[in-house]
Amino acid sequence: MNIAIVGIGLIGGSIGIRLKETNFFDKIIGVEKSEVNQKKALQLGLVDEIQTLEEAMKTCKVIVLTIPVDAIMTLLPKLLDIATDQVIIDMGSTKSNILNLIKDHPNRGRYVAAHPMAGTEYSGPEAAIPNLFKDKMMVYVEAFRSDEDAFELADAVTEQLEMQTSFMTAEEHDMHTAYVSHISHLTSFALALTVLEKEKSQGRIFELAGSGFQSTVRLAKSSPDMWTPIFKQNRTNVLEVLEEHIKQLQHIYEKIQNEDYEAVHKWIKKSNKIKRIIK
Amino acid sequence: MNIAIVGIGLIGGSIGIRLKETNFFDKIIGVEKSEVNQKKALQLGLVDEIQTLEEAMKTCKVIVLTIPVDAIMTLLPKLLDIATDQVIIDMGSTKSNILNLIKDHPNRGRYVAAHPMAGTEYSGPEAAIPNLFKDKMMVYVEAFRSDEDAFELADAVTEQLEMQTSFMTAEEHDMHTAYVSHISHLTSFALALTVLEKEKSQGRIFELAGSGFQSTVRLAKSSPDMWTPIFKQNRTNVLEVLEEHIKQLQHIYEKIQNEDYEAVHKWIKKSNKIKRIIK
Repeated sequence: MNIAIVGIGLIGGSIGIRLKETNFFDKIIGVEKSEVNQKKALQLGLVDEIQTLEEAMKTCKVIVLTIPVDAIMTLLPKLLDIATDQVIIDMGSTKSNILNLIKDHPNRGRYVAAHPMAGTEYSGPEAAIPNLFKDKMMVYVEAFRSDEDAFELADAVTEQLEMQTSFMTAEEHDMHTAYVSHISHLTSFALALTVLEKEKSQGRIFELAGSGFQSTVRLAKSSPDMWTPIFKQNRTNVLEVLEEHIKQLQHIYEKIQNEDYEAVHKWIKKSNKIKRIIK
Repeated sequence: MNIAIVGIGLIGGSIGIRLKETNFFDKIIGVEKSEVNQKKALQLGLVDEIQTLEEAMKTCKVIVLTIPVDAIMTLLPKLLDIATDQVIIDMGSTKSNILNLIKDHPNRGRYVAAHPMAGTEYSGPEAAIPNLFKDKMMVYVEAFRSDEDAFELADAVTEQLEMQTSFMTAEEHDMHTAYVSHISHLTSFALALTVLEKEKSQGRIFELAGSGFQSTVRLAKSSPDMWTPIFKQNRTNVLEVLEEHIKQLQHIYEKIQNEDYEAVHKWIKKSNKIKRIIK
């Protein structure tokens, strides 16, 4: 049994590395439109061979989509049109729109919506790393709408990746990821730009950048090709959380402006409750 | 020759650990108002003994202030009043106000304004760690106003800590730290609160929190006792950078709201230039 990985970047490539280790599949087929990335994927040993998507649909039982979410919106309905007994797993970061789009498709059952909560700020085949998924969470969205055998096979892949699992509705998933992932990226991008703008007039500004700055801004290295579609597909939730975040910043702006340092102290102390959540 | 560390927390304690290794000073004296922290500091071996500030001014040649910046504002003038040939080094995170406060003091020359660009999100004596300062930057502010022998001795301490050095005016220092340190903390506090607020209605929200969230929010564990005075003492710069940061977030809010994804893509790509600065 073969598996095809469509889009060999950070996520797809890291899946390839792990599945080659486990030998659960006979062959790992790479589908990748960029010729440069095809070559890199083969050189780095992320996949066994490159095929076109049409070929892969014939030679593979499992098709994993690890491409930007807007590309998934375009591609998935076409794959379902020609699907017979294959299992198509989408590993994108947003789910409501895609699930809505294919909800009445006659081959809906062959599709499994999954989101591995793992990644780094790097992209492309060179970004692929071993153990990216180990002990991380694979979120299944509306898993009950997949055919039982399709879900079983998808879950076997998850097991190969050594991941934990969680089940959610599309609405839950998209709202939760907006809060614990998408907003972190927006604040990092904004922080990077705030400081880069200032640097133009103040050359030495980064001389003092320490580890605190690095950790809050590292996500600003993330790919615009991946993230623009996420903000597009999860627009409503992203706008909601962004509005709340801006309100928090405006609140503390006013408190500092009005020199109400008791309120500032209280605000910081309240935020310290995050200790309960993160190590 | 003895050195006194006034305030034995993350910074003071880490200085103690390092100076005990190098034996540059005969004794490391701890000055600490909290009895609990006095005990911890002795148990953890951060200092050799505890003295009152009055005693320490008599027994020590070098006095290092590692207390919150508002406490430095209160304490430093009093210490200068009674200083003879001691060197008093302030290691606080803001400089304009304190330098302005003591600029005409007859013993101004005994004071060295320094800021080690090193730290973690933890506080208290237990947070002290070896090598916190190694290869980090010590910023001297208006060093030319210190007596030559006082500066030489302060710089010897910096050398013991294995730090690099940089020289700035107070205005430069406070503006630069607002951009590469203070704003990072504000965004982290705000991000933590944004998500904690939402959690109240959505219990499972942190199930999906990955490493991206952790890294943008870890500074939200930082102490309100340390950070409130920083925002107070560096109010003008902090408000300036916070205003610019909010503008960046409002800009991207509008672009997402208006579905101008070309502009979103461009904005992210521009922020990617941070790759030039951070590893």
